[in-house]
Amino acid sequence: MRGIEDAIEKQKASRRNAEQVRVGIIGYGTVGRATAEILSSHAEEISVKTGGVSIVVTRICRQKPRATELGVNGITVVSDWRQVATADDVDIVVEAIGGTSVARDVVGTSLENGKAVVTANKALIALHGDELFALAQEKNLPIGIEATVAGGVPVIRAISEALAADRIQSVYGIVNGTCNYILTQMEEHGIEFAHALEQAQAAGYAEADSSLDIDGLDARDKIAILARIAFGHSVLASEIPVTGIRNITSTDFHYAHRLNSTIRLVASAERADGGVHIAVQPWLEPRDSMLAKAAGANNAIFIAGESVGTQMLYGRGAGGSATGTAVLSDVLQIARQIARGQTESSLLAGFDCAAPLHPLPRPNPVSWFLRLTVNDQPGILARTAEAIAREGINIDSVIQEPNMAKDRLSFVITLEPTLETTVQRAVEAINLFEFMKAPVLLLPMISSAEEHV
Amino acid sequence: MRGIEDAIEKQKASRRNAEQVRVGIIGYGTVGRATAEILSSHAEEISVKTGGVSIVVTRICRQKPRATELGVNGITVVSDWRQVATADDVDIVVEAIGGTSVARDVVGTSLENGKAVVTANKALIALHGDELFALAQEKNLPIGIEATVAGGVPVIRAISEALAADRIQSVYGIVNGTCNYILTQMEEHGIEFAHALEQAQAAGYAEADSSLDIDGLDARDKIAILARIAFGHSVLASEIPVTGIRNITSTDFHYAHRLNSTIRLVASAERADGGVHIAVQPWLEPRDSMLAKAAGANNAIFIAGESVGTQMLYGRGAGGSATGTAVLSDVLQIARQIARGQTESSLLAGFDCAAPLHPLPRPNPVSWFLRLTVNDQPGILARTAEAIAREGINIDSVIQEPNMAKDRLSFVITLEPTLETTVQRAVEAINLFEFMKAPVLLLPMISSAEEHV
Repeated sequence: MRGIEDAIEKQKASRRNAEQVRVGIIGYGTVGRATAEILSSHAEEISVKTGGVSIVVTRICRQKPRATELGVNGITVVSDWRQVATADDVDIVVEAIGGTSVARDVVGTSLENGKAVVTANKALIALHGDELFALAQEKNLPIGIEATVAGGVPVIRAISEALAADRIQSVYGIVNGTCNYILTQMEEHGIEFAHALEQAQAAGYAEADSSLDIDGLDARDKIAILARIAFGHSVLASEIPVTGIRNITSTDFHYAHRLNSTIRLVASAERADGGVHIAVQPWLEPRDSMLAKAAGANNAIFIAGESVGTQMLYGRGAGGSATGTAVLSDVLQIARQIARGQTESSLLAGFDCAAPLHPLPRPNPVSWFLRLTVNDQPGILARTAEAIAREGINIDSVIQEPNMAKDRLSFVITLEPTLETTVQRAVEAINLFEFMKAPVLLLPMISSAEEHV
Repeated sequence: MRGIEDAIEKQKASRRNAEQVRVGIIGYGTVGRATAEILSSHAEEISVKTGGVSIVVTRICRQKPRATELGVNGITVVSDWRQVATADDVDIVVEAIGGTSVARDVVGTSLENGKAVVTANKALIALHGDELFALAQEKNLPIGIEATVAGGVPVIRAISEALAADRIQSVYGIVNGTCNYILTQMEEHGIEFAHALEQAQAAGYAEADSSLDIDGLDARDKIAILARIAFGHSVLASEIPVTGIRNITSTDFHYAHRLNSTIRLVASAERADGGVHIAVQPWLEPRDSMLAKAAGANNAIFIAGESVGTQMLYGRGAGGSATGTAVLSDVLQIARQIARGQTESSLLAGFDCAAPLHPLPRPNPVSWFLRLTVNDQPGILARTAEAIAREGINIDSVIQEPNMAKDRLSFVITLEPTLETTVQRAVEAINLFEFMKAPVLLLPMISSAEEHV
């Protein structure tokens, strides 16, 4: 008779109030916890916004379920994620464990079991997005990804819904708050990278292992996602050229200031002839631009559309409560679908996964900032200038501070607008010179931002 | 047999392709035309974003249908809006005639006839929103209003969807591009208001009758709409206190610069004890703030949420193509609903129309900038300072340029943080002085923006 009892139990569990949508949270770190807390503290607002549908957390999976929390408020706390992903009393799974291997199984299993999914996991979507969106489409279930880029700043919605009728020309901006915090600390206090990184760690903006942030990999995953929704093709994140901020020095900021500019790590994707240019690299940016004004751990994303012009969205790009709000924006939208008995797979699923974009070099000539670190000797400028002239590039200025250490002297050359492929040939030649103490630091000088707005 | 033929005709007309959603445009000025043009030029993008649903314009109502355009591309051009609002071959009506009387009938009749509605008409929604949303709810039909505020900048979506799980604390910013263009011209070129207005008219940013813009009424309607969706109650726009920019002089900018600030017309709504503070007035704003950096005809809207922090959305606030893109963002969203055979009334319809918000004074003490224009005589500063002291207010600074005309001398007093109601009592007393040539220009000094981000 066990079978019948089980069936009754199962039926009871799946019989939810039509006005109630049930959420299971897998992973109970910063984002998972914030999601549950906002859901509980803003229940009244949420009920108004969903037109009376109440959203309840029924299950939480965390590594070490604490006995005291078991069953609190009717929430079942488990340690095996399958007990959420396959549960009958869960309609929407919030994947908040991070990483790309277990998370992939979590999302896959949840979809297979008819659950809608919401995730803040940019690495997962950048790496396995094609596969997961295809599965979601097959199951006619949505995957919400608003929280994967720029925390609570609704950049995914802006591109995929608000500008749905437009042809996007480019998406670019500051998408990693940790790097921006480090760069603005270096700018404001004249400190070196290592010191600013320590401060970011002390302030809670950087992990102990900060490599994903400072080497630009987090920004790379985010621009892969943005490019995907802006241009309608999947992007192999691993193909995107990435330069992080590890090699930026206080001297670079000194030279940047002489050029009335500052340095920001920018992820960008822009239509080019035959494809899309995508890159992550530090830009030299005029100090009075909107992009330069994005200070501290904030994100600033520019979206340029053919009809709409250029927009900027600015705000906190990380943190539990901002990210939790973004997760919940997707949860609410999906809950309304579920309440009317009809889910839709994400729009992203309809995009062309078969023809991934291969990032192209920057399509237009721009000005360049080259910082050289050399062991000083006669003839350096002559030989460098000759290598530049050989590529047909005009030098705009040479800046060298007096009284620098001879054995590690930094100076800067700025170039008139030149194609990226051309300037890279010159840089390769310069890097071979025996007096070079480090590879050239090459930054595009882009007076972006509000000029286009 | 006429009856049967009619029925067949009617059935044929209403038998649309399941994958096709039909749009009727009423009013073919800047916005109506741009909507039709973007729909046609971006058909491929739109089809991808709607998952294969094609959106076609079937009817256009314009005052003087031109013979040459009749029937072009299968579009029926009519001069009576009822032939669109009641047509069987229209699913979504785009109301683009402007004004509040005919437009109200257009939206009402369209809803009565089972059509979804999209409008860019802020005056209509501010004045008749309650009635129209109630009708939409009754008919279970959506009204799309993204285009009513800030053109293509998706501020309505940001508040109603992206931040749906958050409790909004305040919404404020630059929502009238014409005023911002005039103020930035005055700031940059040191010119007077009348001259800057002429330039705005020449540049196509201001109408011949520019009063709706420069007297702040357009901004008032927009903040009424934003407050409504942010706080969930209807707002009587006519109750919102409004100060336009007509009385701002080049001397005011001169004094603002001495305070390292500039002047921007700001519409704001902020939670206050027992309600919401709502106002439209020029602010004295630090020059390096994000708000001050919003130059030219752009809009910049800040949204502060309890969980998400403060976000800024920035971009073109007007113009046919930006507004048309916003109109189409709603059309696309509604088209997807129609294609799956299920429309929803707008979320806005669920809000509490019975308890309108009555705007309250600014809830927190802020610093103030008072510009006095006087017929110079001994004792002015003493009597003014006395009127201020009587209210218990501390003066922060007095600034007076030398060599001004005696009979129309302007000087500025700045005050330490004071409640609005208190400072207004002092201003009322000062305005009674016989030496005053014009009422005090009173501007809040708010170092808004990125400090809160």
